[in-house]
Amino acid sequence: MSETPTGNAPHGTHDPVAQEDAGGVLALARDLIRCPSVTPDDGCAIDVLATVLRQMGFAVTPLTFGEGHARTPNLFARLGTGHPHVCFAGHTDVVPVGDAAWRSDPFGAQVHDGLLYGRGACDMKGGIAAFVAAVRCYLARHDGRVPGSISLLITGDEEGPATNGTVRVLEWMEAQGQIPDFCVVGEPTNPQQMGEVIKIGRRGSLNATITVTGVQGHVAYPHRADNPVHRLLAILHELTAAPLDTGSEWFEPSSLQVTSIDVGNTATNVIPATACARLNIRFNDLHTGADLSGWIRTVCARHAPGADVHIRISGESFLTQPTAGVDALRDAVAGVTGHVPRLDTGGGTSDARFISRYCPVAEFGLVGASMHKADEHVPVADLTQLARIYDMFLERLMA
Amino acid sequence: MSETPTGNAPHGTHDPVAQEDAGGVLALARDLIRCPSVTPDDGCAIDVLATVLRQMGFAVTPLTFGEGHARTPNLFARLGTGHPHVCFAGHTDVVPVGDAAWRSDPFGAQVHDGLLYGRGACDMKGGIAAFVAAVRCYLARHDGRVPGSISLLITGDEEGPATNGTVRVLEWMEAQGQIPDFCVVGEPTNPQQMGEVIKIGRRGSLNATITVTGVQGHVAYPHRADNPVHRLLAILHELTAAPLDTGSEWFEPSSLQVTSIDVGNTATNVIPATACARLNIRFNDLHTGADLSGWIRTVCARHAPGADVHIRISGESFLTQPTAGVDALRDAVAGVTGHVPRLDTGGGTSDARFISRYCPVAEFGLVGASMHKADEHVPVADLTQLARIYDMFLERLMA
Repeated sequence: MSETPTGNAPHGTHDPVAQEDAGGVLALARDLIRCPSVTPDDGCAIDVLATVLRQMGFAVTPLTFGEGHARTPNLFARLGTGHPHVCFAGHTDVVPVGDAAWRSDPFGAQVHDGLLYGRGACDMKGGIAAFVAAVRCYLARHDGRVPGSISLLITGDEEGPATNGTVRVLEWMEAQGQIPDFCVVGEPTNPQQMGEVIKIGRRGSLNATITVTGVQGHVAYPHRADNPVHRLLAILHELTAAPLDTGSEWFEPSSLQVTSIDVGNTATNVIPATACARLNIRFNDLHTGADLSGWIRTVCARHAPGADVHIRISGESFLTQPTAGVDALRDAVAGVTGHVPRLDTGGGTSDARFISRYCPVAEFGLVGASMHKADEHVPVADLTQLARIYDMFLERLMA
Repeated sequence: MSETPTGNAPHGTHDPVAQEDAGGVLALARDLIRCPSVTPDDGCAIDVLATVLRQMGFAVTPLTFGEGHARTPNLFARLGTGHPHVCFAGHTDVVPVGDAAWRSDPFGAQVHDGLLYGRGACDMKGGIAAFVAAVRCYLARHDGRVPGSISLLITGDEEGPATNGTVRVLEWMEAQGQIPDFCVVGEPTNPQQMGEVIKIGRRGSLNATITVTGVQGHVAYPHRADNPVHRLLAILHELTAAPLDTGSEWFEPSSLQVTSIDVGNTATNVIPATACARLNIRFNDLHTGADLSGWIRTVCARHAPGADVHIRISGESFLTQPTAGVDALRDAVAGVTGHVPRLDTGGGTSDARFISRYCPVAEFGLVGASMHKADEHVPVADLTQLARIYDMFLERLMA
């Protein structure tokens, strides 16, 4: 497989900006991809980024949290001290290469036919590079000055447990009085092409495991037993009898899915002693994890007073109302791509769930179709386009 | 462990009949127990019985059905040709000795402190011996003559698959015009002491396995999946929503028990592809296996059109209305034991389910507390009492 040298026009594209590598987006994306930063390893990715930001005039604060295996490098960098304070949030860590064969070195950052290949190309080293390039372009037009301030919140653990990453950096930022006015998360948000989707919220997620213990016995003498399957059925029937809601202004309806029921009784003439069910709820802004937990526990107590109910809330729902920051982002996306993006709250989770506790946050990045797969890649033209979008966004918000 | 010689008075009983071993009940019970007839082995038990019956004047027809491992020895014996024709049904095969240690040889038929020990002592070689002894006593009082006729239907496979046993003998009896007017099955029917329970019917039993196949998917996108657990829950809710009935004149309410639900999905974020449930119905004479099967299939089709529904009916319910034969048996039990027995239709299955298709049938035998356990035993006094009950029953029915 041949390789197109950095900065040369890739085959199959005639975008003049790509030919120029505006703001150095392709060069930085390649430098970052070449750091093998599979969670929890950093592969010097944070250092590479810190060096670039310092050269641009950012005040860079490396923030390492946790010990041993949990040790996580992070970074906060800020240019200027005024308001509006716009922050870009992202992660330098990537998921593993996986079992499937790659056409080229996953950490080689090769460009072929206008596509940049490598683990993290779209999720989300390409996004980081685009934001840095956007800031370079912005500064170039404004004599190196920014009226408010621009910051980056970068973690080395978004794909892993995320314990010592964004959550800890935000705590530090709050303690330092560095909470921004608006934050953009650079995760890939577009399903197929640039300009499709800005995420302004996410549903919450709750997992519950319900174990009912009854009294084992012979099916011929049910009055001498207490069938835990029937108690569990009553619980699950009540939990699934009606939809949780019909959706809200910006959210789809909440959804409860029973993902497993397990008894493991092979004897046809025996009433079993225990029965276990597991369920997941993806919930919108009409609910909280606490409300739903209380509801589940109440229903369980009604039908099986001694049931063991284990609930884990992996994220609350959140929503950023489409105000100034979101408007600026939408205008920038529409202006550069020609598509008015859909404001969406679907899909899985990201670190935006943590940031939403401190300030308004929206997500926009590259096309995610190849993320987490073999041959992850991004069109070089998309990288350039994303840099221009972030640049226009900064221009509008700082104006 | 000391042994009381046959025919001597066991310690702890002063029943003069037991001291005499009326009709040779203890001797025959011991001879039968000493044949190690664990299903499918016969251990010469059928031959021992056939010899005794021939000596008493019975026309004995050995009936062996099946080939190879399924080869099953059975016996039909009849004394006289007239009516009323009273039949005693039983089995010479026994369940295995089991893992637990016995206090004495399971096939040694030792008597200790008035208790006869051995596999089959109560289930049901003791019952067979009691009936043969009863016939001897009856004949002794009536100069060796019987006004109607007395027969025995004995199988060597009641504890096993029961394929080539009672079912095949009944087919032969029907072909030969030998169907009796009333049949007593000598299974142990008394929970704790002699005289408690006559069984005049049994509930039917049906097992169903329901497998629902849906479309696997991510819990965050339930509209792209089809959760088979939810379809299965709808089926099971409808099947268990209301009692099947409130019981009938001689039966307890029918009972549906879901015995297992199994999905085996360990991923909290995945909607599984299939879900499986198993259930058992013990049903009374208000239902048939066919009606219940149709109902289950209709409910499944409503909630999961493609569901795989496997149903096995292991027995229909049956009832012998308490008329002449049952009355005679009840009067005999009450007369000998001093207890008016309860007419019952509960508990598990026996070969009475097959016999009920041909003629009225009731069950009365020994105390079943130790059956299928280590140290299976029966009081010698109970054996003697059962012989007197069967004798009085014959006297009343032949009068």
